[in-house]
Amino acid sequence: MPKIGNFTYPEISIGQTASYTRHIEERDIQLFAAVSGDVNPVHLDPVFAAGTVFKQRIAHGMLTGAVISAALAMELPGPGTIYLSQSLRFRLPVTIGETVTVKLEVIEKQDRRQVVSLDCKAYNKAGKLVANGIAEVIAPAEKLLIERPPLPDVEVRSGKI
Amino acid sequence: MPKIGNFTYPEISIGQTASYTRHIEERDIQLFAAVSGDVNPVHLDPVFAAGTVFKQRIAHGMLTGAVISAALAMELPGPGTIYLSQSLRFRLPVTIGETVTVKLEVIEKQDRRQVVSLDCKAYNKAGKLVANGIAEVIAPAEKLLIERPPLPDVEVRSGKI
Repeated sequence: MPKIGNFTYPEISIGQTASYTRHIEERDIQLFAAVSGDVNPVHLDPVFAAGTVFKQRIAHGMLTGAVISAALAMELPGPGTIYLSQSLRFRLPVTIGETVTVKLEVIEKQDRRQVVSLDCKAYNKAGKLVANGIAEVIAPAEKLLIERPPLPDVEVRSGKI
Repeated sequence: MPKIGNFTYPEISIGQTASYTRHIEERDIQLFAAVSGDVNPVHLDPVFAAGTVFKQRIAHGMLTGAVISAALAMELPGPGTIYLSQSLRFRLPVTIGETVTVKLEVIEKQDRRQVVSLDCKAYNKAGKLVANGIAEVIAPAEKLLIERPPLPDVEVRSGKI
């Protein structure tokens, strides 16, 4: 079984980096609409979206937020991280078929509460910044190396494309 | 067909409010894991989660972020809104079966770019604040009253519960 591990507070240093990539597919737009309830036609309806400033369907902005949150939870600090806060600035739309790569960098440590601040930048495959912000987390108290649970197998049964 | 409408910049006033509610089910945790790639066992594995500070499985923090983003996109200002930024502070875990209600309030308008700032508060069914923050959006340029696209029909085929 593949494993996932983490970095505890003492193992984290300022300047430490990690990266996490997700491919944004049609399916992800449908899943994000289902989970959030945001069924705006700019995400779901190609004819409507063609008439918008974006000219085509785009991913929900907070889907990039979800990818950033996963980077923190899966990579740095990884499992056991407690999420305190996140700022996000949405800079460019993410289109369907785009690849989003999140780059994390540790920018501050607060020893008293074991809080770590990370600069979070999400890029598209052309290397343009699509969103960025700062995360504050409590680093994991315990070292973990655990079986990686499988990605849930989900199926989109409807949704006009 | 049910419709969704919006508020254009001139129709929005400081102090205006809206509310949006989502029930967080088992299925939503699986969908959020699938869409973000965050398969942390605190969300997916009841045995692992029982040994954490939370004592049970909890929803991904950014799932509440997704619900806040949907409140902005569906209710106030509604369709045609362009998301500029969001701050989020995660205050309490959201458990499975919880109902999250987002309350939005317009706190600032910037005429030059038609930017609206909204205070966003997410509450659980006991009325406790689970997350809050500030959103900045560009209000819709055009009045819209459009057919509400159906929620995508998705099925979770796996995922140990």
